[in-house]
Amino acid sequence: MRIVKSAAVMQQLAKRWQAQRRRVGFVPTMGYLHEGHLSLVRRARRAVGPRGIVVVSIYVNPTQFGPKEDLSRYPRDFPRDKKLCRAAGVDVIFAPDDHEMYPQSSGGYSTIVAEESLSRGMEGASRPTHFCGVTTVVAKLFNLVLPEVAVFGAKDFQQAAVVQRMVRDLDFPVKIIVAPTHREPDGLAMSSRNKYLTPEQRAQATVLHEALQLAAKLVKRKTVSSSALKAKLSQFIARRPAARVDYIEFFDPQTLQPVEKAARGTRLALAVFFGKTRLIDNAQL
Amino acid sequence: MRIVKSAAVMQQLAKRWQAQRRRVGFVPTMGYLHEGHLSLVRRARRAVGPRGIVVVSIYVNPTQFGPKEDLSRYPRDFPRDKKLCRAAGVDVIFAPDDHEMYPQSSGGYSTIVAEESLSRGMEGASRPTHFCGVTTVVAKLFNLVLPEVAVFGAKDFQQAAVVQRMVRDLDFPVKIIVAPTHREPDGLAMSSRNKYLTPEQRAQATVLHEALQLAAKLVKRKTVSSSALKAKLSQFIARRPAARVDYIEFFDPQTLQPVEKAARGTRLALAVFFGKTRLIDNAQL
Repeated sequence: MRIVKSAAVMQQLAKRWQAQRRRVGFVPTMGYLHEGHLSLVRRARRAVGPRGIVVVSIYVNPTQFGPKEDLSRYPRDFPRDKKLCRAAGVDVIFAPDDHEMYPQSSGGYSTIVAEESLSRGMEGASRPTHFCGVTTVVAKLFNLVLPEVAVFGAKDFQQAAVVQRMVRDLDFPVKIIVAPTHREPDGLAMSSRNKYLTPEQRAQATVLHEALQLAAKLVKRKTVSSSALKAKLSQFIARRPAARVDYIEFFDPQTLQPVEKAARGTRLALAVFFGKTRLIDNAQL
Repeated sequence: MRIVKSAAVMQQLAKRWQAQRRRVGFVPTMGYLHEGHLSLVRRARRAVGPRGIVVVSIYVNPTQFGPKEDLSRYPRDFPRDKKLCRAAGVDVIFAPDDHEMYPQSSGGYSTIVAEESLSRGMEGASRPTHFCGVTTVVAKLFNLVLPEVAVFGAKDFQQAAVVQRMVRDLDFPVKIIVAPTHREPDGLAMSSRNKYLTPEQRAQATVLHEALQLAAKLVKRKTVSSSALKAKLSQFIARRPAARVDYIEFFDPQTLQPVEKAARGTRLALAVFFGKTRLIDNAQL
């Protein structure tokens, strides 16, 4: 397994693979890897085959964090990430630093990629600059790694939708695969941010998954007004004293537009604070 | 010579060339080709060699025109463009329509690429949405044609600078070549928009080039305040009754920032209206 820190070297490698006609599968991450990430790695390997190349990027991208968010305390453990990648059969870790990604030399950095429809609600409403940071860094990573296939996790459903839209709109020659959310045995979606939780918060954090299951049960046989369901889920979540709802949204999985009535097939996403830690989850009902 | 109208077919072709390790040189145009465009084609051919592929795109991109600009009357002559391209040894013309470039199906088009520093002044000040349209369509074209080299004309100096910045910032694996401005025998920079000029306007339009030469003469042996030079050039241009200055700007060729004092090496750009027709030109002093 090779570790590449330079953007220029990464792109040279990618061009060489292209000339050798080797298929490249890419998993962009912010590191502090868990079983969810590793399932994306396995999905990438399946897509490109044993002769293909699997690249994992590990980069905590500052431009997708708001000024009051957890950029500085975002968990990092590169030695552990390396071990996990090696064991998972990753071929290359691309781990640039901020100077490689956003060089401030000769005039500085001044280009953005922005998706202006799917990115407006939910995470985009709670974190106004978030998705512009995501689309910009993903565009850069695609141009540096030149993958045929890139794998994103369904836990960040809106992110995957925004990236897919960007790829379609800007004609990136990359196929996006969205792989299912990996969960702890008690149902909590795996996330690097789970590490922030106190034992008490961790115990109560299963409420996101439980709320998804409750909503699925409530719409199983009938259509229900989204506002009534939201009220019910809010109440349900409020029974955990450490939990504070950020948003609960019922929406069309294609357009991400809120729906007035939820039914089977509607997508539900929610964000819940535990102290300063904000967790998200989603499911198709 | 092959003519491709479908974006999907263009990208498939480009991927095939990649697999065949053929070098691709790209000249994006809005058609109505003139000798200036053909000099860019020759430059692209020189870059990729006789075995390489030269692609010219012909697409009048609506998103780079303002609501009051000349989109609908922009000159078009595809049969003539085809002949010129064939004679110039172009391998592929990519001529998509708006539905290919900005499909309105399944949720519509919602992603932009924006350069937010070099694009602010001059053309960007006179045409506020122009460069966002340019960077977005150029990003799309790069992803569809997958060129190794793309050639832009120096007549649109700011455009070339903005595209170069976009390529650097987003790490596009494309080398940008800026080729010199082609001029009519009397000095007028070649432009598809010259066609709009009445004979009287056409005669007076040499004033752009003459103003560049006058400025170069004035700073040949000394540094001169930009505002004094601007006043002088405005007066000089005003002697042509059909001409109306839009802007005259002295700036650093790297940062495009206005300079207070002009000297040798300073770049001068200007935009002048003749009736509704707006012409631009620029030079290094």
